[in-house]
Amino acid sequence: MVIVGERINSTRKDVLKAIRERDGSLIMDEARRQREAGADYIDCNAAAVGISEEPEALAWVVELVQEATGAPCAIGSPNPEAIRRALEVHSGQAMVNSITAEKSRFEALIPLILEHKAKVIALCIDESGMPSGLEDRLEKGRKVMDMLLDAGIPPSDIYIDPLVLPISIDQGNGISFLKALAKLKELYPDANTIGGISNVSFGLPARRVLNRAFVVLAIGMGIDALIVDPTDGELMSLIFATEALLGRDEFCMGYISAAREGRVRI
Amino acid sequence: MVIVGERINSTRKDVLKAIRERDGSLIMDEARRQREAGADYIDCNAAAVGISEEPEALAWVVELVQEATGAPCAIGSPNPEAIRRALEVHSGQAMVNSITAEKSRFEALIPLILEHKAKVIALCIDESGMPSGLEDRLEKGRKVMDMLLDAGIPPSDIYIDPLVLPISIDQGNGISFLKALAKLKELYPDANTIGGISNVSFGLPARRVLNRAFVVLAIGMGIDALIVDPTDGELMSLIFATEALLGRDEFCMGYISAAREGRVRI
Repeated sequence: MVIVGERINSTRKDVLKAIRERDGSLIMDEARRQREAGADYIDCNAAAVGISEEPEALAWVVELVQEATGAPCAIGSPNPEAIRRALEVHSGQAMVNSITAEKSRFEALIPLILEHKAKVIALCIDESGMPSGLEDRLEKGRKVMDMLLDAGIPPSDIYIDPLVLPISIDQGNGISFLKALAKLKELYPDANTIGGISNVSFGLPARRVLNRAFVVLAIGMGIDALIVDPTDGELMSLIFATEALLGRDEFCMGYISAAREGRVRI
Repeated sequence: MVIVGERINSTRKDVLKAIRERDGSLIMDEARRQREAGADYIDCNAAAVGISEEPEALAWVVELVQEATGAPCAIGSPNPEAIRRALEVHSGQAMVNSITAEKSRFEALIPLILEHKAKVIALCIDESGMPSGLEDRLEKGRKVMDMLLDAGIPPSDIYIDPLVLPISIDQGNGISFLKALAKLKELYPDANTIGGISNVSFGLPARRVLNRAFVVLAIGMGIDALIVDPTDGELMSLIFATEALLGRDEFCMGYISAAREGRVRI
């Protein structure tokens, strides 16, 4: 399972403050904690500093995170210029978070993704906006996938996200995501699937419990990568357990090792 | 979701001791705790006292549990005579745990189930023993289901259990159970599905974590009833969460209420 650590996000007040004040210690600490907890990629998002400051801020975050951990980053921004600046300072293969089937965004990002041979998260969003229900997710998913494949992005570098939306807004959002995931895997077996899990619990109490259960359900449907908070030890424990239960962990050795190392929380 | 509380089982040393000494306080306490934690049925098993003592012991346990909680019992025994005695003292509709397609067991239990209009857990086991893999589970499942339906048991009173076996013994045991569950639901839409979840983690560390993840996966496949330890608050929290995520909890009100009542553990 590929884990993208979601904690360095400027929608969090303490992260925004640290970015604004260029206080590197909180950023580096969050990066290290996530890496140690099992993150393969550290997501970096500085969008809340505002559009003019963001490119420099995001590049600063990415450099710090790589200095602290050596890990590749997922580079998150609504702003192609910020993604360009961040890709320029990034070492190794980054993951762009994210592209959609919206023409202007797509055309701005594709040259950068190709130039830097980056991986990319593809959201099931097009000019008409967010998806609603299963069929709409599939239609928008096929659209963005076809555009990416036509542009020459290798399927193994694509992480398609059927878009996790809150169940508090529409009860069907959980099921639609899970079913779209299974179907997109079938349609594009050489691409990867991913989901920003914690959106599912927006507006509800005890969000972590919903996020944990949704992670297990998504793994049950075959998801390849998760955007989550890896410092949630209970969540990571359930990931180890689910892979063992689904026979994806030979002789349960991954689970047994994790338990021995104290990484399975009862 | 129907919850069968599994804690009053004579394979536990303290339970066995309490049954042997006819010390009712532990039994009643375990019954109450499970009922308060959300058990719909309290499973009662006294088999470890030995075959000659068991009928009287099991009837004693069942009476005590009903005195303490008023809840219906799942009556667990390899011994039809013990099940007969327990059904005789039981008030309301009991659940017999369990029947199989083994001829002698089947013929001994059917008259009791019919006489007491009991519900029954049907295991995917036949004369050739435990099932191995998906196809074998389906074959044994069809066999026991057909025998039960032929005998006149209403499908809504049948809880079919594809048989949870440890993943430590065969890595495929988790997947086979889940796939058999989905298929048996399709074949017998008017019957119910159930699973004795905690067998899955036998022989592995941090068993509760595996049990919790397996519960979420089983609910994802549509399971109707769970034999679990309802005093595991994290497990019960994940059940509430999973039902909300799958759109089976209108406006997430069940989840929100459980959280308000402090029954969702973060």
